[in-house]
Amino acid sequence: VFGDFRPKLSEDSRAAEMVFLGNIQPDLQREVRAQCEAARFVALDSMNLWIETTKDALLKAIAEVHCLVLNDAELRMLTGEANLARAAGAAMDLGPGVVVAKRGEYGAALFHRHGVFAIPGYLLEDVRDPTGAGDSFAGGFLGYLDGAGGGDPDDATLRRAMAYGSVLASFNVEDFGTERVAGLKPDEIEERYEAFRRLSHFDQAALPSESA
Amino acid sequence: VFGDFRPKLSEDSRAAEMVFLGNIQPDLQREVRAQCEAARFVALDSMNLWIETTKDALLKAIAEVHCLVLNDAELRMLTGEANLARAAGAAMDLGPGVVVAKRGEYGAALFHRHGVFAIPGYLLEDVRDPTGAGDSFAGGFLGYLDGAGGGDPDDATLRRAMAYGSVLASFNVEDFGTERVAGLKPDEIEERYEAFRRLSHFDQAALPSESA
Repeated sequence: VFGDFRPKLSEDSRAAEMVFLGNIQPDLQREVRAQCEAARFVALDSMNLWIETTKDALLKAIAEVHCLVLNDAELRMLTGEANLARAAGAAMDLGPGVVVAKRGEYGAALFHRHGVFAIPGYLLEDVRDPTGAGDSFAGGFLGYLDGAGGGDPDDATLRRAMAYGSVLASFNVEDFGTERVAGLKPDEIEERYEAFRRLSHFDQAALPSESA
Repeated sequence: VFGDFRPKLSEDSRAAEMVFLGNIQPDLQREVRAQCEAARFVALDSMNLWIETTKDALLKAIAEVHCLVLNDAELRMLTGEANLARAAGAAMDLGPGVVVAKRGEYGAALFHRHGVFAIPGYLLEDVRDPTGAGDSFAGGFLGYLDGAGGGDPDDATLRRAMAYGSVLASFNVEDFGTERVAGLKPDEIEERYEAFRRLSHFDQAALPSESA
Protein backbone atom coordinates (compact mmCIF):
# COMPACT_ATOMS: atom_id res chain seq x y z
CA VAL A 1 0.00 0.00 0.00
CA PHE A 2 2.65 2.49 1.03
CA GLY A 3 5.12 1.65 -1.75
CA ASP A 4 7.96 4.16 -1.73
CA PHE A 5 6.09 6.59 0.47
CA ARG A 6 8.41 8.52 2.78
CA PRO A 7 6.64 10.68 5.32
CA LYS A 8 7.88 14.26 5.46
CA LEU A 9 6.36 16.37 8.18
CA SER A 10 5.65 20.08 8.04
CA GLU A 11 7.52 22.36 10.39
CA ASP A 12 4.39 22.67 12.53
CA SER A 13 4.03 18.91 12.84
CA ARG A 14 7.69 18.51 13.70
CA ALA A 15 7.20 20.90 16.59
CA ALA A 16 4.42 18.81 18.18
CA GLU A 17 5.01 17.90 21.82
CA MET A 18 2.31 15.21 21.76
CA VAL A 19 2.51 12.68 18.94
CA PHE A 20 0.22 9.82 17.96
CA LEU A 21 1.73 7.35 15.52
CA GLY A 22 -1.40 5.91 13.93
CA ASN A 23 -1.53 2.39 12.64
CA ILE A 24 0.74 2.25 9.58
CA GLN A 25 3.80 0.22 8.62
CA PRO A 26 6.23 0.37 11.58
CA ASP A 27 9.25 1.64 9.62
CA LEU A 28 7.15 4.61 8.52
CA GLN A 29 6.09 5.17 12.11
CA ARG A 30 9.77 5.29 13.04
CA GLU A 31 10.49 7.83 10.29
CA VAL A 32 7.69 10.03 11.60
CA ARG A 33 8.90 9.57 15.15
CA ALA A 34 12.45 10.58 14.23
CA GLN A 35 11.23 13.85 12.74
CA CYS A 36 9.34 14.83 15.90
CA GLU A 37 12.29 16.16 17.82
CA ALA A 38 10.18 18.26 20.19
CA ALA A 39 7.97 15.33 21.23
CA ARG A 40 7.56 14.84 24.97
CA PHE A 41 4.99 12.04 24.75
CA VAL A 42 4.64 9.67 21.82
CA ALA A 43 1.95 6.99 21.54
CA LEU A 44 1.83 4.23 18.96
CA ASP A 45 -1.04 2.14 17.63
CA SER A 46 -0.52 -0.97 15.53
CA MET A 47 -2.37 -4.10 14.41
CA ASN A 48 -2.14 -7.86 13.88
CA LEU A 49 -0.87 -7.41 10.29
CA TRP A 50 2.37 -5.74 11.41
CA ILE A 51 2.82 -8.14 14.31
CA GLU A 52 2.68 -10.99 11.80
CA THR A 53 4.63 -9.51 8.91
CA THR A 54 7.09 -6.91 10.27
CA LYS A 55 7.52 -7.74 13.93
CA ASP A 56 11.18 -6.72 14.17
CA ALA A 57 10.45 -3.26 12.82
CA LEU A 58 7.43 -3.00 15.10
CA LEU A 59 9.50 -3.89 18.17
CA LYS A 60 11.98 -1.15 17.25
CA ALA A 61 9.15 1.35 16.82
CA ILE A 62 7.61 0.34 20.17
CA ALA A 63 10.97 0.78 21.91
CA GLU A 64 11.01 4.43 20.80
CA VAL A 65 7.63 5.51 22.23
CA HIS A 66 6.23 6.34 25.66
CA CYS A 67 2.87 4.68 25.21
CA LEU A 68 1.62 1.62 23.35
CA VAL A 69 -2.08 1.46 22.41
CA LEU A 70 -3.35 -1.91 21.16
CA ASN A 71 -6.43 -4.09 21.20
CA ASP A 72 -6.21 -6.66 23.97
CA ALA A 73 -6.01 -9.52 21.46
CA GLU A 74 -3.12 -7.79 19.67
CA LEU A 75 -1.33 -7.19 22.95
CA ARG A 76 -1.53 -10.91 23.65
CA MET A 77 -0.37 -11.73 20.13
CA LEU A 78 2.56 -9.30 20.34
CA THR A 79 3.86 -10.65 23.63
CA GLY A 80 2.76 -14.29 23.51
CA GLU A 81 1.16 -13.86 26.94
CA ALA A 82 -2.46 -15.05 27.18
CA ASN A 83 -3.05 -13.14 30.41
CA LEU A 84 -3.73 -9.44 29.79
CA ALA A 85 -1.90 -8.14 32.86
CA ARG A 86 1.16 -10.23 32.01
CA ALA A 87 0.95 -9.19 28.36
CA ALA A 88 0.92 -5.54 29.44
CA GLY A 89 3.92 -6.16 31.68
CA ALA A 90 5.80 -7.79 28.82
CA ALA A 91 4.90 -4.85 26.57
CA MET A 92 6.30 -2.40 29.12
CA ASP A 93 9.53 -4.40 29.09
CA LEU A 94 9.78 -3.49 25.38
CA GLY A 95 10.14 0.17 26.30
CA PRO A 96 6.87 2.10 26.76
CA GLY A 97 6.10 3.18 30.30
CA VAL A 98 2.38 3.22 29.55
CA VAL A 99 0.33 0.49 27.89
CA VAL A 100 -3.33 0.87 26.94
CA ALA A 101 -5.36 -2.23 26.06
CA LYS A 102 -8.48 -1.41 24.06
CA ARG A 103 -11.31 -3.87 24.70
CA GLY A 104 -14.02 -2.77 22.26
CA GLU A 105 -17.47 -2.47 23.82
CA TYR A 106 -16.01 -3.68 27.13
CA GLY A 107 -13.90 -0.57 27.56
CA ALA A 108 -10.16 -0.30 28.08
CA ALA A 109 -7.40 -1.03 30.57
CA LEU A 110 -4.34 1.05 31.46
CA PHE A 111 -1.04 -0.27 32.77
CA HIS A 112 1.95 1.76 33.87
CA ARG A 113 4.80 1.52 36.33
CA HIS A 114 2.75 2.76 39.24
CA GLY A 115 -0.77 1.62 38.60
CA VAL A 116 -3.45 -0.36 36.86
CA PHE A 117 -6.80 1.04 35.80
CA ALA A 118 -9.79 -0.38 33.95
CA ILE A 119 -12.84 1.41 32.60
CA PRO A 120 -15.93 -0.28 31.18
CA GLY A 121 -17.40 0.81 27.88
CA TYR A 122 -20.16 3.39 28.13
CA LEU A 123 -23.47 1.53 27.83
CA LEU A 124 -25.33 3.06 24.91
CA GLU A 125 -28.76 2.01 23.69
CA ASP A 126 -27.96 3.13 20.15
CA VAL A 127 -24.70 2.11 18.56
CA ARG A 128 -24.69 2.86 14.85
CA ASP A 129 -21.12 2.41 13.71
CA PRO A 130 -18.15 1.19 15.78
CA THR A 131 -15.71 2.22 13.02
CA GLY A 132 -13.14 4.68 14.33
CA ALA A 133 -13.84 4.06 18.02
CA GLY A 134 -10.19 3.21 18.65
CA ASP A 135 -8.90 6.35 16.95
CA SER A 136 -11.49 8.51 18.74
CA PHE A 137 -10.32 6.98 21.99
CA ALA A 138 -6.70 7.81 21.16
CA GLY A 139 -7.71 11.36 20.24
CA GLY A 140 -9.51 11.95 23.53
CA PHE A 141 -6.79 10.22 25.53
CA LEU A 142 -3.86 12.13 24.03
CA GLY A 143 -5.79 15.36 23.67
CA TYR A 144 -6.42 15.38 27.39
CA LEU A 145 -2.81 14.50 28.21
CA ASP A 146 -1.65 17.30 25.93
CA GLY A 147 -3.86 19.85 27.65
CA ALA A 148 -2.82 18.53 31.05
CA GLY A 149 0.85 19.18 30.50
CA GLY A 150 2.10 16.58 28.06
CA GLY A 151 5.11 14.55 29.15
CA ASP A 152 5.33 12.25 32.15
CA PRO A 153 1.65 12.23 33.22
CA ASP A 154 0.87 10.94 36.71
CA ASP A 155 -1.60 8.18 37.56
CA ALA A 156 -4.59 10.46 38.19
CA THR A 157 -4.00 12.31 34.92
CA LEU A 158 -3.68 9.07 32.96
CA ARG A 159 -6.97 7.82 34.46
CA ARG A 160 -8.78 10.99 33.48
CA ALA A 161 -7.28 10.71 30.00
CA MET A 162 -8.64 7.14 29.76
CA ALA A 163 -12.08 8.43 30.70
CA TYR A 164 -11.94 11.25 28.13
CA GLY A 165 -10.80 8.76 25.50
CA SER A 166 -13.76 6.54 26.38
CA VAL A 167 -16.11 9.52 26.23
CA LEU A 168 -14.93 10.44 22.74
CA ALA A 169 -15.18 6.83 21.57
CA SER A 170 -18.72 6.58 22.95
CA PHE A 171 -19.80 9.63 20.96
CA ASN A 172 -18.06 8.34 17.85
CA VAL A 173 -20.07 5.11 17.71
CA GLU A 174 -23.40 6.97 17.98
CA ASP A 175 -23.26 7.94 14.32
CA PHE A 176 -21.56 7.06 11.07
CA GLY A 177 -18.16 8.53 10.25
CA THR A 178 -17.05 11.51 12.28
CA GLU A 179 -20.33 13.46 12.23
CA ARG A 180 -21.18 13.09 15.90
CA VAL A 181 -17.68 13.89 17.14
CA ALA A 182 -17.21 16.81 14.72
CA GLY A 183 -20.29 18.50 16.14
CA LEU A 184 -19.48 17.92 19.81
CA LYS A 185 -19.67 20.77 22.29
CA PRO A 186 -17.48 20.96 25.42
CA ASP A 187 -20.56 20.72 27.67
CA GLU A 188 -21.57 17.43 26.10
CA ILE A 189 -18.11 16.01 26.73
CA GLU A 190 -18.09 17.10 30.39
CA GLU A 191 -21.61 15.77 30.89
CA ARG A 192 -20.72 12.33 29.59
CA TYR A 193 -17.48 12.31 31.58
CA GLU A 194 -19.59 12.68 34.73
CA ALA A 195 -22.05 10.06 33.42
CA PHE A 196 -19.09 7.72 33.04
CA ARG A 197 -18.16 8.31 36.66
CA ARG A 198 -21.71 7.54 37.75
CA LEU A 199 -21.70 4.43 35.55
CA SER A 200 -18.57 2.95 37.03
CA HIS A 201 -18.14 4.19 40.60
CA PHE A 202 -19.24 2.54 43.82
CA ASP A 203 -19.00 3.49 47.47
CA GLN A 204 -16.48 2.37 50.01
CA ALA A 205 -17.22 -0.86 51.82
CA ALA A 206 -20.00 -0.52 54.37
CA LEU A 207 -20.30 -3.97 55.80
CA PRO A 208 -23.59 -4.43 57.57
CA SER A 209 -23.42 -5.60 61.15
CA GLU A 210 -23.93 -9.32 61.56
CA SER A 211 -27.61 -10.21 61.53
CA ALA A 212 -29.32 -13.56 61.37
CA VAL B 1 -30.93 -35.21 33.61
CA PHE B 2 -33.51 -34.29 36.22
CA GLY B 3 -36.08 -37.01 35.27
CA ASP B 4 -38.86 -37.11 37.83
CA PHE B 5 -36.92 -35.07 40.36
CA ARG B 6 -39.18 -32.84 42.44
CA PRO B 7 -37.35 -30.45 44.74
CA LYS B 8 -38.54 -30.52 48.34
CA LEU B 9 -36.96 -27.92 50.58
CA SER B 10 -36.20 -28.26 54.25
CA GLU B 11 -38.01 -26.03 56.69
CA ASP B 12 -34.87 -23.94 57.08
CA SER B 13 -34.55 -23.43 53.36
CA ARG B 14 -38.21 -22.50 53.05
CA ALA B 15 -37.64 -19.75 55.59
CA ALA B 16 -34.88 -18.09 53.56
CA GLU B 17 -35.41 -14.40 52.86
CA MET B 18 -32.74 -14.33 50.14
CA VAL B 19 -33.00 -17.01 47.45
CA PHE B 20 -30.77 -17.84 44.50
CA LEU B 21 -32.34 -20.12 41.92
CA GLY B 22 -29.25 -21.67 40.37
CA ASN B 23 -29.17 -22.75 36.76
CA ILE B 24 -31.49 -25.78 36.48
CA GLN B 25 -34.60 -26.59 34.43
CA PRO B 26 -36.99 -23.61 34.79
CA ASP B 27 -40.03 -25.60 35.98
CA LEU B 28 -37.89 -26.89 38.86
CA GLN B 29 -36.77 -23.34 39.61
CA ARG B 30 -40.45 -22.38 39.84
CA GLU B 31 -41.16 -25.25 42.24
CA VAL B 32 -38.32 -24.11 44.49
CA ARG B 33 -39.48 -20.52 44.24
CA ALA B 34 -43.04 -21.47 45.23
CA GLN B 35 -41.80 -23.16 48.40
CA CYS B 36 -39.84 -20.09 49.53
CA GLU B 37 -42.75 -18.20 51.00
CA ALA B 38 -40.60 -15.97 53.20
CA ALA B 39 -38.41 -14.80 50.30
CA ARG B 40 -37.93 -11.05 50.03
CA PHE B 41 -35.42 -11.14 47.18
CA VAL B 42 -35.13 -13.94 44.63
CA ALA B 43 -32.49 -14.09 41.92
CA LEU B 44 -32.43 -16.50 39.00
CA ASP B 45 -29.61 -17.75 36.79
CA SER B 46 -30.18 -19.68 33.58
CA MET B 47 -28.40 -20.63 30.37
CA ASN B 48 -28.71 -20.96 26.59
CA LEU B 49 -30.01 -24.56 26.85
CA TRP B 50 -33.21 -23.49 28.64
CA ILE B 51 -33.66 -20.45 26.39
CA GLU B 52 -33.57 -22.80 23.41
CA THR B 53 -35.56 -25.75 24.77
CA THR B 54 -37.97 -24.51 27.46
CA LYS B 55 -38.34 -20.80 26.83
CA ASP B 56 -42.00 -20.57 27.92
CA ALA B 57 -41.24 -22.12 31.29
CA LEU B 58 -38.19 -19.89 31.65
CA LEU B 59 -40.21 -16.75 30.95
CA LYS B 60 -42.68 -17.79 33.68
CA ALA B 61 -39.83 -18.40 36.09
CA ILE B 62 -38.25 -15.02 35.27
CA ALA B 63 -41.58 -13.26 35.85
CA GLU B 64 -41.59 -14.56 39.42
CA VAL B 65 -38.17 -13.26 40.53
CA HIS B 66 -36.71 -9.90 41.53
CA CYS B 67 -33.37 -10.28 39.82
CA LEU B 68 -32.20 -11.98 36.63
CA VAL B 69 -28.51 -12.96 36.37
CA LEU B 70 -27.31 -14.02 32.92
CA ASN B 71 -24.25 -13.91 30.70
CA ASP B 72 -24.47 -10.99 28.29
CA ALA B 73 -24.76 -13.33 25.29
CA GLU B 74 -27.63 -15.18 26.96
CA LEU B 75 -29.38 -11.93 27.78
CA ARG B 76 -29.21 -11.03 24.09
CA MET B 77 -30.44 -14.47 23.10
CA LEU B 78 -33.34 -14.37 25.57
CA THR B 79 -34.60 -10.98 24.43
CA GLY B 80 -33.58 -10.91 20.77
CA GLU B 81 -31.91 -7.54 21.37
CA ALA B 82 -28.31 -7.29 20.14
CA ASN B 83 -27.63 -4.17 22.22
CA LEU B 84 -26.92 -5.00 25.88
CA ALA B 85 -28.68 -1.98 27.38
CA ARG B 86 -31.78 -2.68 25.28
CA ALA B 87 -31.61 -6.38 26.11
CA ALA B 88 -31.52 -5.52 29.81
CA GLY B 89 -34.50 -3.20 29.38
CA ALA B 90 -36.43 -5.94 27.60
CA ALA B 91 -35.52 -8.38 30.39
CA MET B 92 -36.85 -5.95 33.02
CA ASP B 93 -40.10 -5.84 31.05
CA LEU B 94 -40.41 -9.57 31.75
CA GLY B 95 -40.71 -8.88 35.48
CA PRO B 96 -37.39 -8.56 37.38
CA GLY B 97 -36.58 -5.09 38.65
CA VAL B 98 -32.87 -5.89 38.60
CA VAL B 99 -30.87 -7.42 35.74
CA VAL B 100 -27.21 -8.42 36.01
CA ALA B 101 -25.24 -9.15 32.84
CA LYS B 102 -22.13 -11.23 33.50
CA ARG B 103 -19.31 -10.48 31.03
CA GLY B 104 -16.66 -13.01 31.95
CA GLU B 105 -13.17 -11.54 32.32
CA TYR B 106 -14.59 -8.13 31.32
CA GLY B 107 -16.66 -7.83 34.47
CA ALA B 108 -20.39 -7.30 34.82
CA ALA B 109 -23.13 -4.73 34.28
CA LEU B 110 -26.16 -3.92 36.43
CA PHE B 111 -29.46 -2.50 35.23
CA HIS B 112 -32.41 -1.50 37.38
CA ARG B 113 -35.23 1.02 37.28
CA HIS B 114 -33.13 3.82 38.68
CA GLY B 115 -29.63 3.20 37.46
CA VAL B 116 -26.98 1.55 35.34
CA PHE B 117 -23.62 0.37 36.63
CA ALA B 118 -20.68 -1.42 35.07
CA ILE B 119 -17.63 -2.91 36.74
CA PRO B 120 -14.57 -4.27 34.94
CA GLY B 121 -13.13 -7.65 35.81
CA TYR B 122 -10.33 -7.57 38.37
CA LEU B 123 -7.06 -7.80 36.49
CA LEU B 124 -5.20 -10.83 37.80
CA GLU B 125 -1.82 -12.03 36.65
CA ASP B 126 -2.65 -15.61 37.57
CA VAL B 127 -5.93 -17.13 36.50
CA ARG B 128 -5.98 -20.86 37.05
CA ASP B 129 -9.58 -21.94 36.58
CA PRO B 130 -12.55 -19.77 35.51
CA THR B 131 -15.01 -22.54 36.43
CA GLY B 132 -17.52 -21.33 38.98
CA ALA B 133 -16.78 -17.63 38.56
CA GLY B 134 -20.45 -16.92 37.80
CA ASP B 135 -21.71 -18.76 40.85
CA SER B 136 -19.07 -17.13 43.08
CA PHE B 137 -20.21 -13.79 41.73
CA ALA B 138 -23.84 -14.61 42.58
CA GLY B 139 -22.79 -15.74 46.05
CA GLY B 140 -20.93 -12.52 46.80
CA PHE B 141 -23.65 -10.38 45.22
CA LEU B 142 -26.57 -11.97 47.08
CA GLY B 143 -24.61 -12.53 50.26
CA TYR B 144 -23.93 -8.83 50.50
CA LEU B 145 -27.55 -7.91 49.72
CA ASP B 146 -28.70 -10.33 52.40
CA GLY B 147 -26.43 -8.80 55.01
CA ALA B 148 -27.44 -5.30 53.90
CA GLY B 149 -31.10 -5.85 54.57
CA GLY B 150 -32.43 -8.12 51.87
CA GLY B 151 -35.44 -6.90 49.92
CA ASP B 152 -35.67 -3.77 47.78
CA PRO B 153 -31.98 -2.73 47.78
CA ASP B 154 -31.17 0.80 46.66
CA ASP B 155 -28.72 1.79 43.93
CA ALA B 156 -25.69 2.24 46.20
CA THR B 157 -26.30 -1.12 47.88
CA LEU B 158 -26.68 -2.89 44.53
CA ARG B 159 -23.40 -1.36 43.33
CA ARG B 160 -21.57 -2.53 46.43
CA ALA B 161 -23.10 -5.97 45.96
CA MET B 162 -21.79 -6.02 42.37
CA ALA B 163 -18.32 -5.20 43.67
CA TYR B 164 -18.46 -7.92 46.33
CA GLY B 165 -19.66 -10.39 43.71
CA SER B 166 -16.72 -9.43 41.51
CA VAL B 167 -14.33 -9.77 44.44
CA LEU B 168 -15.54 -13.30 45.18
CA ALA B 169 -15.35 -14.25 41.50
CA SER B 170 -11.80 -12.90 41.30
CA PHE B 171 -10.70 -15.08 44.21
CA ASN B 172 -12.50 -18.09 42.77
CA VAL B 173 -10.53 -18.08 39.51
CA GLU B 174 -7.19 -17.95 41.35
CA ASP B 175 -7.37 -21.65 42.12
CA PHE B 176 -9.12 -24.84 41.09
CA GLY B 177 -12.50 -25.69 42.53
CA THR B 178 -13.57 -23.81 45.63
CA GLU B 179 -10.27 -23.99 47.54
CA ARG B 180 -9.36 -20.34 47.34
CA VAL B 181 -12.84 -19.11 48.26
CA ALA B 182 -13.31 -21.67 51.04
CA GLY B 183 -10.19 -20.38 52.78
CA LEU B 184 -10.96 -16.69 52.43
CA LYS B 185 -10.70 -14.36 55.39
CA PRO B 186 -12.84 -11.22 55.78
CA ASP B 187 -9.75 -9.00 55.64
CA GLU B 188 -8.78 -10.40 52.26
CA ILE B 189 -12.24 -9.64 50.92
CA GLU B 190 -12.21 -6.07 52.21
CA GLU B 191 -8.71 -5.52 50.87
CA ARG B 192 -9.66 -6.64 47.39
CA TYR B 193 -12.86 -4.59 47.52
CA GLU B 194 -10.71 -1.51 48.03
CA ALA B 195 -8.31 -2.69 45.32
CA PHE B 196 -11.29 -2.91 42.98
CA ARG B 197 -12.17 0.69 43.79
CA ARG B 198 -8.63 1.77 43.04
CA LEU B 199 -8.69 -0.24 39.81
CA SER B 200 -11.84 1.36 38.45
CA HIS B 201 -12.19 4.86 39.89
CA PHE B 202 -11.07 8.15 38.42
CA ASP B 203 -11.25 11.76 39.57
CA GLN B 204 -13.75 14.38 38.61
CA ALA B 205 -13.02 16.36 35.48
CA ALA B 206 -10.24 18.88 35.92
CA LEU B 207 -9.92 20.49 32.56
CA PRO B 208 -6.59 22.24 32.22
CA SER B 209 -6.67 25.88 31.22
CA GLU B 210 -6.00 26.46 27.54
CA SER B 211 -2.33 26.49 26.75
CA ALA B 212 -0.57 26.49 23.41
